[in-house]
Amino acid sequence: MTERRKKPRSRRDRKWRVIRGGVTAPQGYLASGVAAGIKKAALDLAVLFSARPTSAAAVFTRNAAQAAPVILSRKHLRLCRGRAQALLVNSGCANACTGRKGLKDADICAGSLASQLELEKCRVIVASTGVIGAPLPLTKVLKGVSTAVSALSTRGGEAAARAIMTTDTHEKVYAIESRIKGKPVRIGGMAKGAGMIHPDMATMIAVITTDAHIPPLRLDRILRRAVDSTFNCLTVDGDTSTNDTVVLFANGASDVKVDGRWLAHFESGLTRVCEELARSIARDGEGATKFVEISVGGAASVRDARRVGMSVANSPLVKTALFGEELNWGRIVCAAGNSGVTFNPDLVTVSIGGVPLFRGGEPVTLTKRQARELMSARDIEISIALGMGDRSAKIWTCDMSREYIDINAGYMS
Amino acid sequence: MTERRKKPRSRRDRKWRVIRGGVTAPQGYLASGVAAGIKKAALDLAVLFSARPTSAAAVFTRNAAQAAPVILSRKHLRLCRGRAQALLVNSGCANACTGRKGLKDADICAGSLASQLELEKCRVIVASTGVIGAPLPLTKVLKGVSTAVSALSTRGGEAAARAIMTTDTHEKVYAIESRIKGKPVRIGGMAKGAGMIHPDMATMIAVITTDAHIPPLRLDRILRRAVDSTFNCLTVDGDTSTNDTVVLFANGASDVKVDGRWLAHFESGLTRVCEELARSIARDGEGATKFVEISVGGAASVRDARRVGMSVANSPLVKTALFGEELNWGRIVCAAGNSGVTFNPDLVTVSIGGVPLFRGGEPVTLTKRQARELMSARDIEISIALGMGDRSAKIWTCDMSREYIDINAGYMS
Repeated sequence: MTERRKKPRSRRDRKWRVIRGGVTAPQGYLASGVAAGIKKAALDLAVLFSARPTSAAAVFTRNAAQAAPVILSRKHLRLCRGRAQALLVNSGCANACTGRKGLKDADICAGSLASQLELEKCRVIVASTGVIGAPLPLTKVLKGVSTAVSALSTRGGEAAARAIMTTDTHEKVYAIESRIKGKPVRIGGMAKGAGMIHPDMATMIAVITTDAHIPPLRLDRILRRAVDSTFNCLTVDGDTSTNDTVVLFANGASDVKVDGRWLAHFESGLTRVCEELARSIARDGEGATKFVEISVGGAASVRDARRVGMSVANSPLVKTALFGEELNWGRIVCAAGNSGVTFNPDLVTVSIGGVPLFRGGEPVTLTKRQARELMSARDIEISIALGMGDRSAKIWTCDMSREYIDINAGYMS
Repeated sequence: MTERRKKPRSRRDRKWRVIRGGVTAPQGYLASGVAAGIKKAALDLAVLFSARPTSAAAVFTRNAAQAAPVILSRKHLRLCRGRAQALLVNSGCANACTGRKGLKDADICAGSLASQLELEKCRVIVASTGVIGAPLPLTKVLKGVSTAVSALSTRGGEAAARAIMTTDTHEKVYAIESRIKGKPVRIGGMAKGAGMIHPDMATMIAVITTDAHIPPLRLDRILRRAVDSTFNCLTVDGDTSTNDTVVLFANGASDVKVDGRWLAHFESGLTRVCEELARSIARDGEGATKFVEISVGGAASVRDARRVGMSVANSPLVKTALFGEELNWGRIVCAAGNSGVTFNPDLVTVSIGGVPLFRGGEPVTLTKRQARELMSARDIEISIALGMGDRSAKIWTCDMSREYIDINAGYMS
């Protein structure tokens, strides 16, 4: 962290510095994480609350089968016109593919939290993650909500981050601070990911808070742009869940109205929080042994660059070769050729860790030792120059190991 | 096989009966499979030859990075106007991403076979499969070609089928016979698959021969339709290779000209050979422990039905749940919702082995014993009724096991 303060990552980030904590790092937020008994002996229910009403924005999964909490949260945001005050997240049960009963269950949970915090029901946003198709254990969840409300604290951000985990191996939090108009403004976040992560955000839940003052419509636009270049560039296994949710609350507790030229500054901070959370999700992908960044350049459009990057990132053959530390760059070219994007292989350059492996349609020969060194790194940078234009994109993913199979072959047991 | 003769699978198949053998089952074909030393101590080079010139048709990969043998074979078919007489296939090296040298190597191999068989060079079709990006070991291949030409035999079909294998666990051959205009007509085939299999036919090579007489243009149309409903409905891991090739030779040695109403009959036979080969590829997918047939019905279009089926078939979460024998049908709904096809989950029915699990937007409860019985089957039938129309499609795939990871993490060593 000291290093980050000394060496800002880019000009636009100059004024944001990393601080401790997650969603309770900004002023005016309380959170808690409790064990409601949905999972066996683990935190599984989180509540977030702001005493001041917040502007709220959210981006949800594009899966055609949307989970009950997603349907309900969309409705609440519409009814309360982008105002919210509380959030309820449970892990251990996705409440997806659960029909009318699932919707009713989600509604009862939101209602219970609203009445305990004395809020209009539509000011409560809900999210769930876990097994699809299983009914929500309502009695346990309602009891958990009461416990969580009693446990609300300005230091509860990390417990909340642990409570939303599924197969994650550790909680994911990040927070930054900057001076805007002479006063400190903070942005904090927590996320869960691990499996089923894909562009349009698979069983991924991210919750971001800020004490900046920004009206709902503007907040929504800023969040969509930030998600598009961060969480939507992330994939673990190509699956997109029924429950993905990114929520952003802005409660204005800093007394700083973010407008004019400060909007871009705020957006750069928000994008940074989203990017850090997205990277930590890829790094903690189910069974991951390597973090992989794929940079695609020389594309005719950003869309083409992303399609190529995603095709490479989701290729089980590329992912298993990375796990095996084999320099099988041919699979990268093959997966790129598979993306549906047209290119001329003779113009393509593929590099790993800055070392060209395929250029001008022909392989570049490496010694066995060079290959071994390249592939044994914990972080792998794959770069693909298509030679078709000047657009580019970055995609984050991880390798695919035996452990991925073990986790997912025995997920329900 | 006896059973098949008694119980024809559908009306149109009534007159085709299964016979022994593969590509040398039809009259007038010689084949051989030899160990050229490209792989360590295994058959790795196959030659197929018809003394009579054949009509030839082929369908190749749509990957943007096409392997040298694919580029050369396309050229030969064009130059010789759909006439061919010989085929050379090697395993152990894909000769893909090998630039001008790769093209020259493929050309030298084809030239060598052509001169030994005293053919015009463009009458030789070539195909390669194996590691991408490695140069073809030319001396070994050329020596292998000579050995293979000496070994050509009417009983060489099975050795040829073994020589084209990569990670396949057994050779794949199929042949059928029917009486057309009072004379016997045969269709025989061999295929290799195992990994990297996807719609547009990933490192999949299939070679089909017939002694029917059919002109090249007609043959091409029939082959494309047959491939579209069989090999293109097959996926093992969602990857499509640089080398996929399906070749069909028709040498007319039966003295039967297939025309008029007999064309549909021939096409049904060809489709059956393609379907049997496609199914055996799915069944022998890398590390597969289960064969999976996904039927999607009630779609607005065949394209939609296929997209849904492919999305389910390629979902690592669905595939690992099948391997773990977990009744996690929620992942099936999730993957379907992920396909980009619009549907209303309340109208969807998902069944496994004929047992409904999700209907009217809600789960159908099964006992643990019922679930275990359903999932422990070796062959799994998943059926998805979308409730959006009357179009349907079938997709064949397999589960994803630890062994898939092991095979692909150590493919080059």
